[in-house]
Amino acid sequence: LVIAIDAMGGDFAPEAPLEGIRQVAVRNADVTFKIFGNEAVLHSFFLAHPTLQERVQIIHTSEYVTNDTPAREALRGLKCSSMRLAIQEVGSGGAECVVSAGNTGAYMALAKVILKTLPGIERPAIARAMPTQKGECVVLDLGANVEVTPFNLVEFAIMGEVFARSVLHKENPSVGLLNVGSEELKGNSIVRQAQELIREQNILANFYGFVEGDDIFAGTTDVVVTDGFSGNIALKTAEGCARFFATVMKQKLMQSWLSRLGTLLAFSALREIRERFDPRNYNGAPFLGLQGIAVKSHGGTDAVGFARAIEVAIELVRGGTNEKISLGIAKMKAHTASQLVDLSMPHCSNQ
Amino acid sequence: LVIAIDAMGGDFAPEAPLEGIRQVAVRNADVTFKIFGNEAVLHSFFLAHPTLQERVQIIHTSEYVTNDTPAREALRGLKCSSMRLAIQEVGSGGAECVVSAGNTGAYMALAKVILKTLPGIERPAIARAMPTQKGECVVLDLGANVEVTPFNLVEFAIMGEVFARSVLHKENPSVGLLNVGSEELKGNSIVRQAQELIREQNILANFYGFVEGDDIFAGTTDVVVTDGFSGNIALKTAEGCARFFATVMKQKLMQSWLSRLGTLLAFSALREIRERFDPRNYNGAPFLGLQGIAVKSHGGTDAVGFARAIEVAIELVRGGTNEKISLGIAKMKAHTASQLVDLSMPHCSNQ
Repeated sequence: LVIAIDAMGGDFAPEAPLEGIRQVAVRNADVTFKIFGNEAVLHSFFLAHPTLQERVQIIHTSEYVTNDTPAREALRGLKCSSMRLAIQEVGSGGAECVVSAGNTGAYMALAKVILKTLPGIERPAIARAMPTQKGECVVLDLGANVEVTPFNLVEFAIMGEVFARSVLHKENPSVGLLNVGSEELKGNSIVRQAQELIREQNILANFYGFVEGDDIFAGTTDVVVTDGFSGNIALKTAEGCARFFATVMKQKLMQSWLSRLGTLLAFSALREIRERFDPRNYNGAPFLGLQGIAVKSHGGTDAVGFARAIEVAIELVRGGTNEKISLGIAKMKAHTASQLVDLSMPHCSNQ
Repeated sequence: LVIAIDAMGGDFAPEAPLEGIRQVAVRNADVTFKIFGNEAVLHSFFLAHPTLQERVQIIHTSEYVTNDTPAREALRGLKCSSMRLAIQEVGSGGAECVVSAGNTGAYMALAKVILKTLPGIERPAIARAMPTQKGECVVLDLGANVEVTPFNLVEFAIMGEVFARSVLHKENPSVGLLNVGSEELKGNSIVRQAQELIREQNILANFYGFVEGDDIFAGTTDVVVTDGFSGNIALKTAEGCARFFATVMKQKLMQSWLSRLGTLLAFSALREIRERFDPRNYNGAPFLGLQGIAVKSHGGTDAVGFARAIEVAIELVRGGTNEKISLGIAKMKAHTASQLVDLSMPHCSNQ
């Protein structure tokens, strides 16, 4: 399994990506890497890790996409950016997946143009695992599509179900549509229509119906489907909430000698709590719906988080994600087509 | 200051509302209550609290809106529900504000029909205070309007600013528009147009611009404006996140003798943490934009939470909220009108 890595993206590049690669290599004996970036820097890292050298190929480039690079510039201006070359490696069949911690907008734009969407998919979506009371769930879309059609939400549901099987190892993932739930307020017309489509077409083996914001962390369903606007806001609100909690915890627990002593005694429990919420364990957001596996790592993560993003990419490849998405989409289209035939039947017999 | 109370709404009615009233009465010597509900039950409570008797008037009814009552039924069927009568008391001038912990959809529908919107306001919004790293902020809309126009968001911004002054006691509240922020994804057309409107009309003294989900808890702005769909999802996601955190904390800290001892030593710090996040301290969500102050208490809260909701209503009345909202809206309309005059001027001189 060959993985293309943009070593120059993210706040801690290239150190975090390189050390992440090393960690993944140790845990996965059968993967090799094609690494795109500044040759001199990359070589010096692998000189210090000689056992890895035969499993990595370094491809030099001096062009990089930064966080300030507009997507347009990344698309039209930078023809040799490490990000573009890494994606192209998947497009040309030289690698089976690509991972970058760089600029999301540029990465998404390049991936769409270079890899193209899977046949039948209108819009790719960004997905990510989240911790829940019952384990993990996947939420999508997290920001690729700020405006969606009911049909797009159905696509996301199919793609999310496949992610839940491949990466979260759920056998029969339940799928919920994110909505608001109070009495009169049964949601906007788009989610209502999406629910009707899913129910009518009977594509999802385990469709739950509507869920609300608090169902994400309650783990009510394995997949939570929403538009990119609400999904992005939900994800970032949760991140902010967790950060706030961590700050207040630290501040209050450190404020007296007694609580510091208590913290020391409860150290192992507190460490487990931290691990349960550690965003690095949930890092790795694939752009689902493309002809190739492209995973986005959080720009601010370290080697541990970057390694997790690479492993999400590996699981997506091994899980045959794109074949399964294509199958799901084909099944839906076939069903829609047969429904159209059904609908036209009376007209035919009336003639 | 006379407060109308629907004593029969919420999961712990009438006990939680009644005990909440008692707590508010103790802290606020100059308020009196008109309480709507089952006379027998209400009387027995006040018999046990004789000092309160002269400050409460009980109005008997045996019709109640439950959580399962459809808004339509509450509107057309139940002509004497405790919820309706309490709202009518504000409409007729017999009380200055109303508080209910009942069914949100029914409450909103009744309040809109009975109180009517303020002149110039197209859509009322549900607002609530949230804890932040810097203190508190107010988020709106939380679910009254799942689909909005750019103009509605401007209304919400004006109303949120007034809430921040009246209830959060901010002198010059900063206002942010909730959006998604990654590179290419600058949000949907509605928030972009709302930002343009606010910038052009220069109505808000302290407009910050776009904020993202994590800015809510970071306390980047004092007011966070969004549509009811995203706002409801953000609020409920945060609630779910906080609940998840609390569950894991409890579970892990109780799992060994050592961590239990640690918890005991850090008890006062942990209590402070719990208080900082206690949703009861942020309870009380007004329907802003109506001709009368109507505050929704969370249905699952207890007396402490219900008391806080009453106090939010008191602060909104004392802060002259509706006068200030009307002033803000009038200012905006005047500005829009003067802009129209400006635009028509060249045509006039050309004639």
